[in-house]
This record gives sequence, structure tokens and C-alpha cells, in this order.
Amino acid sequence: MKGKLYGIGVGPGDPELLTLKAKRLIEECDIVAVPVKKEGEDSVALNIAKGAVDIPEGKIREIVFTMVKDKAKREACRQAAAEEIMELLDEGKSIAMLALGDIGIYSTYAYVHKRLLKAGYDVEMVSGIPSFCAGASKAGISIVEGNEGFGVIPSLKGIDQVEKTLGVFDNLVIMKVGSHVKEVYDLLVERGMENNAIIISNVGMEGEYVGPLIPDRAYGYFTTMIIKSEM
Amino acid sequence: MKGKLYGIGVGPGDPELLTLKAKRLIEECDIVAVPVKKEGEDSVALNIAKGAVDIPEGKIREIVFTMVKDKAKREACRQAAAEEIMELLDEGKSIAMLALGDIGIYSTYAYVHKRLLKAGYDVEMVSGIPSFCAGASKAGISIVEGNEGFGVIPSLKGIDQVEKTLGVFDNLVIMKVGSHVKEVYDLLVERGMENNAIIISNVGMEGEYVGPLIPDRAYGYFTTMIIKSEM
Repeated sequence: MKGKLYGIGVGPGDPELLTLKAKRLIEECDIVAVPVKKEGEDSVALNIAKGAVDIPEGKIREIVFTMVKDKAKREACRQAAAEEIMELLDEGKSIAMLALGDIGIYSTYAYVHKRLLKAGYDVEMVSGIPSFCAGASKAGISIVEGNEGFGVIPSLKGIDQVEKTLGVFDNLVIMKVGSHVKEVYDLLVERGMENNAIIISNVGMEGEYVGPLIPDRAYGYFTTMIIKSEM
Repeated sequence: MKGKLYGIGVGPGDPELLTLKAKRLIEECDIVAVPVKKEGEDSVALNIAKGAVDIPEGKIREIVFTMVKDKAKREACRQAAAEEIMELLDEGKSIAMLALGDIGIYSTYAYVHKRLLKAGYDVEMVSGIPSFCAGASKAGISIVEGNEGFGVIPSLKGIDQVEKTLGVFDNLVIMKVGSHVKEVYDLLVERGMENNAIIISNVGMEGEYVGPLIPDRAYGYFTTMIIKSEM
């Protein structure tokens, strides 16, 4: 019988934020598949899982997803990854493939999932805590209350993105906002909203900062800003 | 010594989607506080937690949050709830207060959290799986891939909300969309996007439906639609 593939979100960093289901499946599956940019690379998702589950080295299987600019090469690599997984499933192996945060939000797993679904394999996605939810909790604030909506921008390309989104939603999450903080601050000042933003930066790493937006400060790559209609 | 309050998201329904941290804290805390609309009401969040943790009845404490229309009465009730919690913390009790889904997304806990923070109490938010993440996983799709943003509308007030949001984000989650499905479908047809929507309805309940948007069908109150730029 063919094996089953589980795509598993391991949450944003704290191993205790794994779900009970994620822990059980990582324990039970024959193989723990870990997406890496190149072979031998250290995997953050794997290290998180290891903090909660004892994973024998022999169960771990690296799956390479190249990040080169050439789109055709990236697609070929995704196809090869899917075929590698299919071969293992054909051998009857069950596989837990890991992803940071939630499995349905910007995960590499999606590229494998779609191909395997199409080919008729048995696949299941298992949700994990998204990083922006953990960030808000870390900062001690809600993302939204009552009947408000919110938007999520994964990586700011230009300040007009923020401007347009604030025309629709009063609550906004901007991920990887590090180098754009001052720019967003200036826009918030224009709108009288400069006290409505919280920064969650480099959590658990050097230079950790969780608190109000300070415009004249340097922030690292792993910086999220949460803008709220009311603080 | 004063006790500590933990606001704990128990996820969207499946007890196995509790985090390891949620389970541990519910086990360890002296009191499990459960928001209810009126005394004796059955609590979905409590039932989910009970599916993963053995909770002695004596540890459970109902906290009433009225849903009456009168805003002043709602505020007074929230204040009374906060004071009830503060009294227990003053007695040195540790408290796990439960919420459905994630603790930072539309949770009643937020009203207590703010008041206790202001009063100088020790409080901590513990993230849970948001319902829309679990919904996407259940449907076997991602919410977002690559570098796309997304918006979340908790409860549709008018179709112009969807129109405006689609002007900013190609990916959109609409919760409690039940009675508006046909209306949203018509808008998607106008944009040639009618095949880009998935419905997750009444999961685990009578009339469960997870699949493509079928316009001429009745959907229950617990219906979420996920619209994607690409399927």
C-alpha cells in the first residue's frame, strides 16, 4: 500500500507551540522530510521539531528547494522534490514534511502538495501557529477585536502597499518590514496613527525587540509590524 | 504572591490542534476560566480542551460576557469579569482562560487582558491555531504562496467590502459568509474568478461541506470562503 504525506506546520520557533497532532505525526511517520535550500543546510523547522520530539537521524530526509532566480530551474527543482517524495510513498513510507509557522501560509510544502494531489496521492495538511499570531501574543496585543478585518503583507515592496491597505483595513500585519520601518512610521504620522504600531523583531535572537515603534532604530530582517485601529 | 493569567487559544475544534503549551498550562493552572454568554451555557472552547486534557470540574470557572446590544452593559460586564479574575489572582491562583482559535484574533479574552495589564497584573497570551488556517488545511489548499498578501473579513457587512479588498489583495478569507455566498459568487463571475474560491462549511457538524463554491446551495452560519489569486 502507498504511504501518506503529511505537511506539518511546526509553528514560529518555540517547540512548545507545536500542536499535539504535529508531535504525534512526526513521531509516527517513517520519514521526516525537511526542505532545505541546499544539502547539509541547517533547518530552523527541524530544530524546532527536535525541541519537542525525539527524531532519530536516520528518519530525516533533506529535500532541496533551490532559491535561484531562474524560474524554470526553481520549477524543475520543485518537480524533482515531488518525484522524490512520490518514490518514497510508492515504497509504502509515511512522510511528515515540515514547514515553519502554518502549513498554508507561504510554505514550500505547497509546491509538493499540489503535484501529489494531482497525481492521486494521499496528502494531508496539518496547521501550525502562524508567526504573526505568535508575534502579537509575544507583544501582548490582539491582532483584531470585535468585527474588524485585517490584512497581511509578507514583505513590503513599496509604501503604496501600506497606503492602499490602510484604505481597506484598519489593522495590518507587515512581515519582514525591517528596512522600511521609518518609511511606514512617516505614513502613520500623516494619518495620526504613529502610536498604533507595535514591532516584534528578532525574537529569540540577538537584538530582540518587542515594543512600540521607535522610528530611529535599526531592525533586523525578522521584523514584523502590527498596526492597529486602536491600541 | 499574586497568580498569573494565561489567555490560551485552543484552536478551531480538533482537540489534537491544541499546542503542547496550551495542554501543559491547562493542566498546571489552578483554575480554567471559560467565557460564556450566560451561566450554565455549554462552552465550545472548554469541550475542545476537554478532548485533550483531563480537567476536574472543580477547576472550571465560568466568566460571563453578555452579548446584549447595550454597549454600556457590555462594558460593565467586561469590567466585572476583569475584577473577578483579579480577585482570584490576588488569592494567588494561576488561571488559564480559554478562547476558540487564536487568542489574538477576535477573542473575548482581549477585554480582560487589557484591563489586567493596566492594573499591573502578570498576564501572558498563548497562541492557538486560527480557524481560517485550519479551514484551508481541511480544504487542502494554501491561503497564500510566494510573496502574496491576504486579507481577512470576519463577517461580511456588504459586498463593497469584498470589492475594495480585492483591489488590494488577490487572496481573501471571508468568515461567516453563509448568507452572502451567492452575492460574492456574482462578484467573482464579473472578475472571471468564480473558480478561485473554496468553501469550508459546518466542519464536524451536520451539513459539512468542504469544496468548490457552489452558488445555488444553502450554507450554515459557520461558513468560511477562501478566495485565491490562483487555484
